[in-house]
Amino acid sequence: MAKIQSGENSTKKEAIIQKAAFLFKTKGYSATSMRELADSLGVEAPSLYNYIGSKSELLQSICSKMANEFHLNLDVVENNTATAVAKVEAIVRFHIQKMLNNFDEVFVANHEWKHLKEPMLSSFLNQRRNYEKRVMAVFENGIEKNELRITNPYVAVLTILSAVRGLEFWYGHKKNVTQEELENEMVKNLLNGIVK
Amino acid sequence: MAKIQSGENSTKKEAIIQKAAFLFKTKGYSATSMRELADSLGVEAPSLYNYIGSKSELLQSICSKMANEFHLNLDVVENNTATAVAKVEAIVRFHIQKMLNNFDEVFVANHEWKHLKEPMLSSFLNQRRNYEKRVMAVFENGIEKNELRITNPYVAVLTILSAVRGLEFWYGHKKNVTQEELENEMVKNLLNGIVK
Repeated sequence: MAKIQSGENSTKKEAIIQKAAFLFKTKGYSATSMRELADSLGVEAPSLYNYIGSKSELLQSICSKMANEFHLNLDVVENNTATAVAKVEAIVRFHIQKMLNNFDEVFVANHEWKHLKEPMLSSFLNQRRNYEKRVMAVFENGIEKNELRITNPYVAVLTILSAVRGLEFWYGHKKNVTQEELENEMVKNLLNGIVK
Repeated sequence: MAKIQSGENSTKKEAIIQKAAFLFKTKGYSATSMRELADSLGVEAPSLYNYIGSKSELLQSICSKMANEFHLNLDVVENNTATAVAKVEAIVRFHIQKMLNNFDEVFVANHEWKHLKEPMLSSFLNQRRNYEKRVMAVFENGIEKNELRITNPYVAVLTILSAVRGLEFWYGHKKNVTQEELENEMVKNLLNGIVK
């Protein structure tokens, strides 16, 4: 059973973070005020500060949370004994699922990270570079084990992660297809290609 | 031989458009001033108005030019007698080439179109919807002719065009690989998949 971190306060803080992610995505970090966030939540602005220190802290929470979740998933993927192909598939599915289930937070971590303050900014960028290297290593391993037909792991990672990240441009259209179908089709297209 | 459109004025106007595309990409349309554009070109601001009517007209020129080029390419692709697979490949290659060769203008047309004024805004969005429909039809034709292994053309178009458009996130890294290798590898990954 999941541990409840710190009761009601934790739930309220999470609700504030979710709403902040929505506003940062929609209007951008710079254009969002704490007053607006309070209005959206139907509370008085000063009461927000019972849960969070500043707007900057909110952005930091969102970016750290996303970075941690992607790294934790990669820990699991790297340590399982499956084939390189299964590892690649697990990574692609996780990226798609995050785009579909945590769109606001992923979008903010992808676009608004540049407003992070130091030392968080450097830390975030280091984590991201580290993540990309670890994903690249999975693809390189797939070449070594003769499971992948690629010759350039950099281009393969670029192509696949870009395709998934591109879901943001099409987000408004996703109603045309169920989430499950979108995920399965996209995985099939990216792993097995589209040409018979 | 290419026709020279209207001599020196046309060349100067094109140089202004190129520089505007660079500034709109880098700073955003809203944050770019005509004065700044003039400074970047090493001319006095009033002299710009010998070639273009307004900042808005510059954005309009960039967006129209890109829309026209993508549509013209699709005219050629649709009317050739090649297989559906060859048509898909030609579309993907064109998108990649535009991202690599006309990055500033493509970026502006992809991101800053929202600042277009009516009736250009509606016209641009109509052209874009029309383009997506035509690309989708090529993929549907590939299913009918049993050349593509996809079941959902919407997801395939989404996946492939997103992958290519995603080059913008990685633009700074493209030095790690030649343009030709990037294009060929990406096409192979997207059409034939990565799994052996």
